[in-house]
Amino acid sequence: MFKKILIANRGEIALRIIRTCKEMGIKTVAVYSTADKDSLHVRFADEAVCIGPAPSKQSYLNMQSIISAAEITNADAIHPGYGFLSENAEFSRICDAYKIKFIGASAEQINQMGDKATAKETMKKAGVPVIPGSDGLLSSVEEGKALAEEIGYPVIIKATAGGGGRGMRIIRHADEFQKHWEDAKMESGAAFGNDGLYLEKFIEEPRHIEIQIVGDQYGNVSHLSERDCSIQRRHQKLIEETPSPIVSPELREQMGAAAVAGAKAIRYEGAGTIEFLVDKYGKFYFMEMNTRIQVEHPITEEVTGFDLIKEQIKVAAGEPVSGTHYYPNQYAMECRINAEDPKNGFRPSPGVIKQINLPGGHGVRVDSHVYAGYVIPPNYDSMIAKLIVSAPTREEVIVRMKRALQEFFIDGIKTTIPFHLKMMDDETFKSGYFNTGYLDNFDFSDL
Amino acid sequence: MFKKILIANRGEIALRIIRTCKEMGIKTVAVYSTADKDSLHVRFADEAVCIGPAPSKQSYLNMQSIISAAEITNADAIHPGYGFLSENAEFSRICDAYKIKFIGASAEQINQMGDKATAKETMKKAGVPVIPGSDGLLSSVEEGKALAEEIGYPVIIKATAGGGGRGMRIIRHADEFQKHWEDAKMESGAAFGNDGLYLEKFIEEPRHIEIQIVGDQYGNVSHLSERDCSIQRRHQKLIEETPSPIVSPELREQMGAAAVAGAKAIRYEGAGTIEFLVDKYGKFYFMEMNTRIQVEHPITEEVTGFDLIKEQIKVAAGEPVSGTHYYPNQYAMECRINAEDPKNGFRPSPGVIKQINLPGGHGVRVDSHVYAGYVIPPNYDSMIAKLIVSAPTREEVIVRMKRALQEFFIDGIKTTIPFHLKMMDDETFKSGYFNTGYLDNFDFSDL
Repeated sequence: MFKKILIANRGEIALRIIRTCKEMGIKTVAVYSTADKDSLHVRFADEAVCIGPAPSKQSYLNMQSIISAAEITNADAIHPGYGFLSENAEFSRICDAYKIKFIGASAEQINQMGDKATAKETMKKAGVPVIPGSDGLLSSVEEGKALAEEIGYPVIIKATAGGGGRGMRIIRHADEFQKHWEDAKMESGAAFGNDGLYLEKFIEEPRHIEIQIVGDQYGNVSHLSERDCSIQRRHQKLIEETPSPIVSPELREQMGAAAVAGAKAIRYEGAGTIEFLVDKYGKFYFMEMNTRIQVEHPITEEVTGFDLIKEQIKVAAGEPVSGTHYYPNQYAMECRINAEDPKNGFRPSPGVIKQINLPGGHGVRVDSHVYAGYVIPPNYDSMIAKLIVSAPTREEVIVRMKRALQEFFIDGIKTTIPFHLKMMDDETFKSGYFNTGYLDNFDFSDL
Repeated sequence: MFKKILIANRGEIALRIIRTCKEMGIKTVAVYSTADKDSLHVRFADEAVCIGPAPSKQSYLNMQSIISAAEITNADAIHPGYGFLSENAEFSRICDAYKIKFIGASAEQINQMGDKATAKETMKKAGVPVIPGSDGLLSSVEEGKALAEEIGYPVIIKATAGGGGRGMRIIRHADEFQKHWEDAKMESGAAFGNDGLYLEKFIEEPRHIEIQIVGDQYGNVSHLSERDCSIQRRHQKLIEETPSPIVSPELREQMGAAAVAGAKAIRYEGAGTIEFLVDKYGKFYFMEMNTRIQVEHPITEEVTGFDLIKEQIKVAAGEPVSGTHYYPNQYAMECRINAEDPKNGFRPSPGVIKQINLPGGHGVRVDSHVYAGYVIPPNYDSMIAKLIVSAPTREEVIVRMKRALQEFFIDGIKTTIPFHLKMMDDETFKSGYFNTGYLDNFDFSDL
């Protein structure tokens, strides 16, 4: 087992990883930018190294600084968390070169899954259902239009290097094709330095449902059921839950088997997530694979009893995956508490947290790095806490989440708490029947 | 179901009850003394009524004020929590007279179990193993000495109206009998206004193990397994855990069956606890019954998924008890965080909480009513938080508790956190083999 792990991240996920390391008796090294010097991850780690100024490129994305920090502290592994360098093939390769274990996917696997067109091709070969569309990249606008006619509108074009909705366009009629094509090409070129586009059938009213998998170095892969992340605003997840209200035991088995087959096809090692779209007929299609831990992993922990960070560390150290361990009588939900003003287009709201009261009691978990007096820097992701609630049924989870949100007060900044409170009273949300477009026409004005 | 519940208590348990009421859609009324005006239970209740000044007799023990508060707010039930009026037969009777449902035992049941000698007699008749000793009260010191000779020293004499260790003496030799008898009589007379004493065989190296039961109005009683509360200092519980490291499935079944038989014998309604001593040979003896919710109830919630306050409210409203619901692969432990200085005889340490950081993450639950800026009044019990940790095994619970305690910082007052931290590293505690006397010779000097 590793003796010392450097955590190449910040915020709640850095603290989350430190917690598990402590429980495993592994020493920890925090790295931090000057903007994060008062963060709890710095306070709770055994050692802490400043790696540069606030802009991520100079600190949390600065591979050389991070490798140097690992070298001087004698860390034998690096956990990248999510975001930042967690899906950076080069960083995975550099860690290998320095004989520091990267707790994540290999450079090859990251590349295979990071390029959307290659990922889709790989999954298709493994027998995972994929959305009808182009075989890899489109060479011209004419090829795209011909294919769209063949598979039928609506279609969607996506940047092969994309993510977060950038370089992505839905096309409903042939006469819009040219314009959207040009916009997407320009946007993806500017954002990712790669303007390759591919095309797919656009799935109407889909749900975003993903399967958590864990693979080991011996080719074993187990899955830990699904998470339903259909409550999104502009492709940003806001609420996640498990089990999904629309996934039957049969569908769960099919999706789980597909995810395991896909992960085995690339001999996937570590924790990962296969994201699917599920259409209104209950058919599911591979969307993408995330080769890292995800923000919403705690809901899976609450229903399975697994510690997913511990699983990551164990398989990285060469241990085999644990078996599946699923309590069917447990339900869990996560609300992302962001320092954003939901009434004003979710505009970021950095600043000082003057007072804070965290909710507590039965079935309530809070993963957060903030405290009274903490200054939220403007440089990073606006998530300041994850409120995770569990109970025997979805109905009980929703009422418990509501009371926990009512207890959760944060003075000094705007947060997404009023949005979540409204959702817990929303009849459509409570019914369990909604799709990823639900928030497109949602009324945020009365928050 | 009740429309509005008045909570005749303060601190964490008042907040705990409000949480469940909110989840059940029941309105709440907080009552508070002037010392508690800034408490969270006041803030989170739908209504709040000041019932008098800080001394408990004038507020939380003032039955007339509390009944008046219930009347003016139209509360249809009163939850007494623990302590204060929770085991007061007169209060239970007054609530009945005012047609306000007392969420607890009937006056008759409270009397039957409140008088230790009667309780023992009742349990013996129901077939529950009891400790050999006097049949009811001793009429004279001579009768006591004769009985002690008969059952063999050591013996213990106890105040029939007692609790918390007062009016209690262990006697190891006949020549000490007279002195201890007189001391116990004087102490119990002064403390309880009742100097009746009874005698029992003293169980050496016992463990304190209790069974949680819930009874309904139809004579059904179910049990929710045991809690091991053997880590005590002067009869004050400090750490509780479930399952007990020394209870086998067979012993659990026997103790559970005995507890159910005892509760059925008095047609017990509501949540209650039958406390047993378990000797080093695995034999168990009835000690007392608590006819109320207990401080340590959350550990049972963590392993069963039950909400015990909800169960109390449901059976009080006439619903039948839920079945037993026990996850055998779950372990839970509670550390009581008290505003006391463990290095100096656990002397109370009231004052202002300048800063506080609550632990979080997987398997960590905090039940607390305090926050940064909160002033701990000197008038009440010193418990300021319950830290409850769960995990699949006892070993994992201990390491998780340790890291949670390390994250839990409270500035401005002394707390029991250093004591708990030492316990989590203590080899005897970690072994699972200890008894209720373990802390008698514990070294608190290095905390």
